[in-house]
Amino acid sequence: MAESMAGLHRTHRCTELSEANIGENVTVMGWVQRSRNKGSIIFTDLRDRSGILQIVFEEENCGNEYYEKAGKLHAEYVIAVEGEVRARSAVNDKIPTGHIEIVAKTLRILAEAETPPFPIEENSKTREDLRFKYRYLDLRRPDIQRNLMTRSKIANVARNFFAEEGFLEVETPTLIKSTPEGARDYLVPSRMHPGNFYALPQSPQLLKQLLMVAGYDRYFQIARCYRDEDLRADRQPEFTQVDMELSFVDVEDVIDVNERFLKKLFKEVKGIDIPTPIQRMTWKECMERFGSDKPDIRFGMELKNVSDVVKDSEFVVFKSALEAGGSVRGINVEGQGEMPRKKIDALVEFAKGNGAKGLAWLALKEDGTTKSSFAKFLTPEIEKALIEAMGAKAGDLLLFAADRNKIVFQVLGALRLEMARQLELTRKDDYRFLWVTEFPLLEWSDEEERFVAMHHPFTMPMEEDLDKIDTDPGAVRAKAYDITLNGNEIGGGSVRIHQGHIQEKMLEVLGFTKEKAQEQFGFLLDAFKYGVPPHAGLAYGLDRLVMLMVEADSIRDVIAFPKVKDASCLMMEAPSEVDVKQLDELGIAVKPQEETAEKDAE
Amino acid sequence: MAESMAGLHRTHRCTELSEANIGENVTVMGWVQRSRNKGSIIFTDLRDRSGILQIVFEEENCGNEYYEKAGKLHAEYVIAVEGEVRARSAVNDKIPTGHIEIVAKTLRILAEAETPPFPIEENSKTREDLRFKYRYLDLRRPDIQRNLMTRSKIANVARNFFAEEGFLEVETPTLIKSTPEGARDYLVPSRMHPGNFYALPQSPQLLKQLLMVAGYDRYFQIARCYRDEDLRADRQPEFTQVDMELSFVDVEDVIDVNERFLKKLFKEVKGIDIPTPIQRMTWKECMERFGSDKPDIRFGMELKNVSDVVKDSEFVVFKSALEAGGSVRGINVEGQGEMPRKKIDALVEFAKGNGAKGLAWLALKEDGTTKSSFAKFLTPEIEKALIEAMGAKAGDLLLFAADRNKIVFQVLGALRLEMARQLELTRKDDYRFLWVTEFPLLEWSDEEERFVAMHHPFTMPMEEDLDKIDTDPGAVRAKAYDITLNGNEIGGGSVRIHQGHIQEKMLEVLGFTKEKAQEQFGFLLDAFKYGVPPHAGLAYGLDRLVMLMVEADSIRDVIAFPKVKDASCLMMEAPSEVDVKQLDELGIAVKPQEETAEKDAE
Repeated sequence: MAESMAGLHRTHRCTELSEANIGENVTVMGWVQRSRNKGSIIFTDLRDRSGILQIVFEEENCGNEYYEKAGKLHAEYVIAVEGEVRARSAVNDKIPTGHIEIVAKTLRILAEAETPPFPIEENSKTREDLRFKYRYLDLRRPDIQRNLMTRSKIANVARNFFAEEGFLEVETPTLIKSTPEGARDYLVPSRMHPGNFYALPQSPQLLKQLLMVAGYDRYFQIARCYRDEDLRADRQPEFTQVDMELSFVDVEDVIDVNERFLKKLFKEVKGIDIPTPIQRMTWKECMERFGSDKPDIRFGMELKNVSDVVKDSEFVVFKSALEAGGSVRGINVEGQGEMPRKKIDALVEFAKGNGAKGLAWLALKEDGTTKSSFAKFLTPEIEKALIEAMGAKAGDLLLFAADRNKIVFQVLGALRLEMARQLELTRKDDYRFLWVTEFPLLEWSDEEERFVAMHHPFTMPMEEDLDKIDTDPGAVRAKAYDITLNGNEIGGGSVRIHQGHIQEKMLEVLGFTKEKAQEQFGFLLDAFKYGVPPHAGLAYGLDRLVMLMVEADSIRDVIAFPKVKDASCLMMEAPSEVDVKQLDELGIAVKPQEETAEKDAE
Repeated sequence: MAESMAGLHRTHRCTELSEANIGENVTVMGWVQRSRNKGSIIFTDLRDRSGILQIVFEEENCGNEYYEKAGKLHAEYVIAVEGEVRARSAVNDKIPTGHIEIVAKTLRILAEAETPPFPIEENSKTREDLRFKYRYLDLRRPDIQRNLMTRSKIANVARNFFAEEGFLEVETPTLIKSTPEGARDYLVPSRMHPGNFYALPQSPQLLKQLLMVAGYDRYFQIARCYRDEDLRADRQPEFTQVDMELSFVDVEDVIDVNERFLKKLFKEVKGIDIPTPIQRMTWKECMERFGSDKPDIRFGMELKNVSDVVKDSEFVVFKSALEAGGSVRGINVEGQGEMPRKKIDALVEFAKGNGAKGLAWLALKEDGTTKSSFAKFLTPEIEKALIEAMGAKAGDLLLFAADRNKIVFQVLGALRLEMARQLELTRKDDYRFLWVTEFPLLEWSDEEERFVAMHHPFTMPMEEDLDKIDTDPGAVRAKAYDITLNGNEIGGGSVRIHQGHIQEKMLEVLGFTKEKAQEQFGFLLDAFKYGVPPHAGLAYGLDRLVMLMVEADSIRDVIAFPKVKDASCLMMEAPSEVDVKQLDELGIAVKPQEETAEKDAE
């Protein structure tokens, strides 16, 4: 039976006590981590969010009644204990309170507890579905608690930094206009306008630009965003952005304020000094050297373009790639020349999984011989030149991809990361930042058979490329930038177009008719008529940033109540069916399963 | 044509310059407030979010080209000016920069502007629908900018205060479970689970309680909440709560931390010292004295119960009210004895609009006579006793309501506020806080013919009333508290039930079957089995708090992009129709208008 805490007042959290408190009478409250009898003494580990504290129940100190009650304690009972702090005879150096214990005088059981479906312990091995069904128990794990405490601190440091820099926190609405292109918008039916829908924002992009039009100068928000798409390992239907926008600035201003932010954040939260200025690399260089627009620069293994070296070879894979305008590139996996054939075959499969037709490999054995999937098609001269071009020595393994550049980068970029993973080349606490700049403004979509915006349609082209927007749109670079950390894009942004005529040109290149542009972005285009300042912005993905800072493996470990892969919440059992009456009021109906299925089959 | 700002760097915002900068070369950027020729000088008022600064263009200083360009400036053009700060000959004491001006050397027009549909000025008299259609222009008004800057500061002070007090900021999900009782939930269809819906939260109530179950001890969040209901003057479909929950506490702990919060908030934002402890009053006393559970205590005019005085009168209105178990109560509107009959009649109508069948009044004329709607039914003795009981003197106006207590309180509470409004008895900058305590746990719903929770079903009954929960549920008081300010409820909360058996009893009293309780709150009831600490919480309505602190008349003046009364956004034109294809993917369809109408007619 749950007792009341009436008359009691907690004086300390568990680890707020130390040897300095010896002799004091204190009241502590929390959860029983474990409780066991040793001879005539009952030892109880009390847990709260601060840590663990040992309580001892001795009949001569707490009397028979409390002693008997203490004998009934089980894991996860919630208790309140009054007692005296005393030095511990058997010191435990593993916990901060290991030099003291509380000699209990009274005990109240504030709540009993059934045995939890899994133990509350660090680095739980419990199945995720069980953890997420009982997330309120999973959240008791000290590692998850530390993660969420760090997340809280990160948000606090961020807000204070940007406030001090003159950013205003402005809340933007989350019931906004649904746009025809918003295939990934979550929709929200409206009771007051049956048959009409709001959309939940994928980002506050247009609204923060309007705040610049409205003269707010510097805007900041930790904003909830939404995307209704298939969940990859590290995506959530709702996620959080650290979002900002600045007026009367150019690229350098945005980079400057954010480098100072990251420096402060890592210093205050991790005690780590980030060297600034942070390294920068153009998108083009990133792709050429790392096969990725978010390169992990904690290790080398850079891509080498060997197209020239092999251009006269008879190997048909290389030949046809080059003839089709592609390239042949490789990476040197140093010291892996003796990799067993089976593991190499697995790498070939991995490459295929990443879009390659195959993977050419060449192993330089320790004994000076080579083994290769394709050397038989090469002259000894070309093989030698190739090894030289790759900077390889005995004992190295060379992996080559030959295809369109896009595929080559994709395959070797992925292989490079996979090798680093297998060879454990990186440490999570080695934080290497990189600005990626000069992104292409547009990228060709095979699917839509038109150019689409690489960042978004409001991104400013680089002035020096403006004249190419009609003649060679794919070659126009954007004033866009990403900030990457250890192979993750943690933030990105751009200078925005603030000139009506450039914005119209951009929408035209993207295939918008005047009418469609007006329908979709009318309020923004209208706003641009009334005096819009030059402006630029950036947004961080907070979930990922926190994940990297706490060295977790998944953003689900830094979100209090995450959704699982099918976008459902196992704890609340959401989404779920609702009353027909509710839907009636919204002017909508659920389509019978058959009907939906038929449509799908059409 | 919009010029680029390449090569320029803003050195100051407008009001960051003062006489200390005289002689300095500066670069300023902003909007043209107005620009006019006076003789050979062009005077331009430059505006940014900090305020106004005067620019002067003189041909001898800026040369002919820039002078000509300056001649073309219109209101709301965005410009950049390089120039020198100099002392002003004609000082303007009305603005902070009134002692200086910038002598322009160069001018760039960063953006031209069409004439706005309404002038950008303080205290705009523009129609709301026009203001909200062009909200990005409306937001340029200095008064609205100040409001949003103060809002930003309030949020910052709040977050830092609670962080320092050991509260963790935890983000709770907004795609949650829809509950059968959630008639006012916004629903969100799910593409991955066609025909199923999430709900947007009306508050993070259950989730913050689960965080307490999970051991987070002190939780804090500035949380977006949603309610799909008809909008009253000061409601929004999405609104913001300053939300908190604490473990191992009772009422006094919550009040203590929040009094210190309010004290700090008003000191830092307004420079005002709030006297603490803040006055407390039970719900019962509030109703008896002010006819309201959120009394405005900036003025008196308290309700008096005169049932005993008139119990023997023959006035049928009084008589029947008393016989039906109701009461007769009045307020004394001092000094209004000479109120013209027409105005009194308007008050009678006002009372009827608030649920009264009529309003009895008695005016004490300056000459000692009385005029009254009902005195003819009273004996002179009763009339005299009534005047005495009301503490009235010559020149006062007495207003009486006779009905069920609920109606009497409602009518006189509203009349009291209406009289204060008419007589201008209050000042917006006179901040009077009041804790309202000991709310009823339950209130009878005539509509549902059952008791409903006054606060919510997780509110702890007062220990001393627990035994009445079966026999006299309406008399049970709750450990609930509201914090009110000048007649507004700005926050409210309660100690929560942490004992499973009391929670089950509460749900039983509320008419839940075991099955329904499990279906609706299953995950909370389950969580309660695994060790739940005593906990309590409170949430502020941030929009209203900011409104009161900036002395605005509507929460729409403290929200960047508010919705209007029909819950639509005039600027974005949301909500709107969407593609059938999108709905197909969600497994829903819009019902034809006729079908919906028929259903309604059934």
